[in-house]
Amino acid sequence: MNLSLVLYIIGSILQFEAGFMLLPAITGLIYGEYTEALTYLGVAVLCLLCGFALKLAKPENRDLYMRDGFAAVALSWIFISAFGAFPFVATGEIPNYIDALFEASSGFTTTGASILSNVEALSHASLFWRSFTHWIGGMGVFVFIMAILPMMGASTMNLMKAESTGPSVGKLVPRVKDTAKILYGLYIAMTIIGTIVYLLSGMNLFEALTMIFGTVGTGGFGIYNDSIASFTPLQQNMITLFMILSGVNYSVYFCIIRGQFKEAFSLEEVKWYFIIIFASAIMIAIDIRNMYPNPGVALRHSFFQVGSIITTTGYSTVDFDMWSQFSKTILVMLMFIGACAGSTGGGIKVSRILILLKSVRKEVNMMIHPHMVKRISVNGKPLQDETLRSTNVFIAIYFVLFFISVLIIGVDELDFTTNFTAVAATINNIGPGLNAVGPSHNFALYSDLSKLVLIFNMLAGRLELFPMLIIFAPSCWKKY
Amino acid sequence: MNLSLVLYIIGSILQFEAGFMLLPAITGLIYGEYTEALTYLGVAVLCLLCGFALKLAKPENRDLYMRDGFAAVALSWIFISAFGAFPFVATGEIPNYIDALFEASSGFTTTGASILSNVEALSHASLFWRSFTHWIGGMGVFVFIMAILPMMGASTMNLMKAESTGPSVGKLVPRVKDTAKILYGLYIAMTIIGTIVYLLSGMNLFEALTMIFGTVGTGGFGIYNDSIASFTPLQQNMITLFMILSGVNYSVYFCIIRGQFKEAFSLEEVKWYFIIIFASAIMIAIDIRNMYPNPGVALRHSFFQVGSIITTTGYSTVDFDMWSQFSKTILVMLMFIGACAGSTGGGIKVSRILILLKSVRKEVNMMIHPHMVKRISVNGKPLQDETLRSTNVFIAIYFVLFFISVLIIGVDELDFTTNFTAVAATINNIGPGLNAVGPSHNFALYSDLSKLVLIFNMLAGRLELFPMLIIFAPSCWKKY
Repeated sequence: MNLSLVLYIIGSILQFEAGFMLLPAITGLIYGEYTEALTYLGVAVLCLLCGFALKLAKPENRDLYMRDGFAAVALSWIFISAFGAFPFVATGEIPNYIDALFEASSGFTTTGASILSNVEALSHASLFWRSFTHWIGGMGVFVFIMAILPMMGASTMNLMKAESTGPSVGKLVPRVKDTAKILYGLYIAMTIIGTIVYLLSGMNLFEALTMIFGTVGTGGFGIYNDSIASFTPLQQNMITLFMILSGVNYSVYFCIIRGQFKEAFSLEEVKWYFIIIFASAIMIAIDIRNMYPNPGVALRHSFFQVGSIITTTGYSTVDFDMWSQFSKTILVMLMFIGACAGSTGGGIKVSRILILLKSVRKEVNMMIHPHMVKRISVNGKPLQDETLRSTNVFIAIYFVLFFISVLIIGVDELDFTTNFTAVAATINNIGPGLNAVGPSHNFALYSDLSKLVLIFNMLAGRLELFPMLIIFAPSCWKKY
Repeated sequence: MNLSLVLYIIGSILQFEAGFMLLPAITGLIYGEYTEALTYLGVAVLCLLCGFALKLAKPENRDLYMRDGFAAVALSWIFISAFGAFPFVATGEIPNYIDALFEASSGFTTTGASILSNVEALSHASLFWRSFTHWIGGMGVFVFIMAILPMMGASTMNLMKAESTGPSVGKLVPRVKDTAKILYGLYIAMTIIGTIVYLLSGMNLFEALTMIFGTVGTGGFGIYNDSIASFTPLQQNMITLFMILSGVNYSVYFCIIRGQFKEAFSLEEVKWYFIIIFASAIMIAIDIRNMYPNPGVALRHSFFQVGSIITTTGYSTVDFDMWSQFSKTILVMLMFIGACAGSTGGGIKVSRILILLKSVRKEVNMMIHPHMVKRISVNGKPLQDETLRSTNVFIAIYFVLFFISVLIIGVDELDFTTNFTAVAATINNIGPGLNAVGPSHNFALYSDLSKLVLIFNMLAGRLELFPMLIIFAPSCWKKY
């Protein structure tokens, strides 16, 4: 590993974090929370200094191989979470560091799983920071998609091409840096438009900002104990809208602002994303119709929860753990499907599911017509064998990690449904699960060991699994 | 599809079933259950006549393509179960036909999941038939492995080669028929040796026969309401031994009787099969040590349950649903791993898990050393790309079917753990699950729709998924 370069990158990230921490400090000042404001300022200075220290050894060699890129990304996410947890401990709001780390990792990985039972007791500064970590994490995902994934190239795996299939983001604009700028532009534009819409729907500025951070980052930390239940129906519907928009492959917006409408609306992944949302929401609405005063309310709640889960946001307007087993099972399935590739959403991703189902169909057809040679194609273009293989390997690793995690946290003796959905909710970066980790509960009841396992799952899920695995391979750390 | 040939095959299978049904009839006579004996005799005659009817149209074309082979296997298993269910209804012991079909399918697929709460109320004839269906099913698995899987060839998928890796069964003896004969010989030898051992351990002949049918067929239907709990410790240990031996890849025995000891003991799959069994049993024994009077008892129960679940037999000496979450999670993982390929056991199979883990390791290594070209090898031989791909596709289909099944049976409003383990226990041909389908419960509480879904899972799991999917593809039924 090119250690000095990796440390240099981590140093820069910490300096960025220092800058980001000024916002909760300002929030604290505005709300008269001077201790909290000073704490955030203090930790910001600490981040800045650590950042400088890590950048002291100027890297001589500027070659960043894939393993370095992966290690840099994994370690950056770990460091940013480790430092981001400090203010929670320093303000005394989350005294246990593992808990604080859980909360910060959950924020930066845009998961939204919490160990807090009473978020309303938090200062405005910390509430702002919690939500803001989602927004930073969402931006980090785009850095990851743009700068790290393309490194993998065809020889190893082709995730980005596999994922943002169709009008490949990289192709539209020649230079990665320009593409990145446009992506950030879109992300910021979505944030601003969302804030305005939320304000117009009657939220105050603090609500609008924290909610939009959680929405566009597909995070899910709320600022009220009942998540989104106390917002008005209009506000809930607006959040539904922006959640669903945030789970769309950003290639679509890319195409739209360039006037390529035909390409924008021909993406198979996005088409299926909307089909799944509508089908699930309508099935659930029919199933839960008798629990609510009229079909409109049932539809509002079903669309909200479906949008929240498939985009891996994790907000809730009702305690869906009280719904029927059928509706809950649909939600559990959506947890695994996840949002579109090329968005801030987590999960397996609609495109991977699509590739999977197409390869199943092809295999069955080949058994019936053994001499038929047919390639799988997505958006009308044939899929490379490498893409297919890497999709399969991804899913294999995913389930191996999944079951090992369920096994380890089983030591805490919570029931199987709780453990299963706790892992599903963290590895897919959603937030709430079912039973003891349902929307009206939290993750505090797990032991520190289990929390560390779930933190690992959040990070692994967020970074498409491989970066987190690579830093555990000893040969990755060898100097060259 | 070559329909007349497929019908001809099904007809022959029904005639075999007629022959097999004479045994429960004789059992009935011995125990003075004359009504039941007559019933079995009557259904045997019915099977024989239907068999003749199906064989009336002599197939002109004797070419059996893969799709025909698959369809023949799937339909044979469906027909043999459909007819095998008749005696239960006719004797009035299981009045509802769907229930009887569930019981018969569970028998022939060597699953062992039951809808009966009081098996001791059954006649000896029916108890014998229930257990005997496991033995017939186990034999059917070998027919499937020998005659149908090789058809798939390299152009589509290479399951048998992938599975019974190492000294490929097909290579040791030139002609498939001779190999088949040796496999049946081994299966029958295992049955006879097991019966003798069971008799020596103090079982009566009826117990020994029914138990060995369930053991070598990796089935799991018991003859007592408490499954195996009332047997002596020695008897339980003997059953453990024969269960574990029945889950071993038969290639090992093949090699041993040919004196190829080095090859027999170098099979990676079998090595890992034993490592998993020992590691799981010891972890569980430590975990449950305080529930039993001494470590020996804990070890006996842990080895029994581990052996029973990994080989997908499904017997139980204790209600493992009362064990800790940690031990239960290990058992759930074993449900998915399953036994060795080339045995009568179900599940994903140790060899597939091995290939999966090796491809994960390879992928991670390739990210660290992108220019390293390394093939995955099993037993020292490089694995074909086709094998890897078909393994991946198998697992993909497996999980798709799994989640759709959990969704559909969710309509019955049982809890998630019950539904999840009910599907796991049927698709992996095990028998009992957890919670409401745990060892001290049964599957009677599911609706008929759910029972049909679970029957489908048993058949699909038993036949390596593809045959059951193919008969649902309309193009499979086209005449050519």
